[in-house]
Amino acid sequence: MLDLRGKRLVLASGSPRREQLLRLLGLEFEVRNSGLVEENHTPAEPAEHVLTLSRRKAEAVAAQVPEGYIVGADTIVVLEGEILGKPRDEAEAFAMLRKLSGRVHRVYTGFTVIEKPSGRWMSDYEVTEVHFRPLTDEEIWAYIRTGSPMDKAGAYGIQDQSAVFADRIVGCFYNVVGFPLTRWYLRMREFLGEP
Amino acid sequence: MLDLRGKRLVLASGSPRREQLLRLLGLEFEVRNSGLVEENHTPAEPAEHVLTLSRRKAEAVAAQVPEGYIVGADTIVVLEGEILGKPRDEAEAFAMLRKLSGRVHRVYTGFTVIEKPSGRWMSDYEVTEVHFRPLTDEEIWAYIRTGSPMDKAGAYGIQDQSAVFADRIVGCFYNVVGFPLTRWYLRMREFLGEP
Repeated sequence: MLDLRGKRLVLASGSPRREQLLRLLGLEFEVRNSGLVEENHTPAEPAEHVLTLSRRKAEAVAAQVPEGYIVGADTIVVLEGEILGKPRDEAEAFAMLRKLSGRVHRVYTGFTVIEKPSGRWMSDYEVTEVHFRPLTDEEIWAYIRTGSPMDKAGAYGIQDQSAVFADRIVGCFYNVVGFPLTRWYLRMREFLGEP
Repeated sequence: MLDLRGKRLVLASGSPRREQLLRLLGLEFEVRNSGLVEENHTPAEPAEHVLTLSRRKAEAVAAQVPEGYIVGADTIVVLEGEILGKPRDEAEAFAMLRKLSGRVHRVYTGFTVIEKPSGRWMSDYEVTEVHFRPLTDEEIWAYIRTGSPMDKAGAYGIQDQSAVFADRIVGCFYNVVGFPLTRWYLRMREFLGEP
């Protein structure tokens, strides 16, 4: 659906979920992990945080790619002003899910696309509101035992067994999974000069 | 996460999407197509329509299953009072997507669970609001050429290339795919007498 005019598309991400999402669009692309170490709990505003991180990831990979479009992205979970990154251990995963239980949080994903060799770039971000129903401790531990929370911001992946934790979302679903497909697609069309 | 006390769980559906969704919960279950022929454009109210159809599907399979929990479900797309079923051909798929473009529609999924041999049962339904951005005719035809719209209510599947057609949903995402996981899970807990 996007016409990249034969140029390469490179996803600067080590997230298998992001790769799966981009595959939905039927585009050809390659994946390169930026190798950037993510730092949690930075003091920046959420939008600034994800925009900055997505740009750093794209830049790290763009430095190694002579030609094409390089896409970086970063996702965080924000609960009442607090940024929840990936949990360090199961106890922290439990504490995060306990906090999210019965409350509304926001998921931010920022993305940056760099065109090489021109160096032209654009960034944007998406926010989705996610409502969690009240969770029992047993449900949280059963979910932690699946191993799924450990590599995920906010200690959950809405596309796995924690699908039944959220009872309502407002906004883009795929943003919660890790990449705001529709916004990215529309911004790419503009960036490529498509009607 | 649900304790079925060793009883069988049977999904009375021929939809591979519904099967994939139920698999997310990590439950063991079998699939049996109810064999019911779906009729489009019935005059019933949307909620009544999906409740009735889901019950008929569950009953058709329950008649063949001596013991266990049988789950039927039915999904429709409703645009300003009009029920959009599965398109009969590509021209109808185009007409449906043209109608949905730039507008808000609602997706209804009803489900019925029958316990055998007791015959005890319950039904419920979920509604999700889906906002489509304005689509070009080229985008619609490109999507129809993927073949995906033909077996789907409203001529789209939000989990495929049409992921970029919706820019916002309000409610349960999985309901749009075809099964409202969270509501079903909560109603099953009640039905099974779990805390």
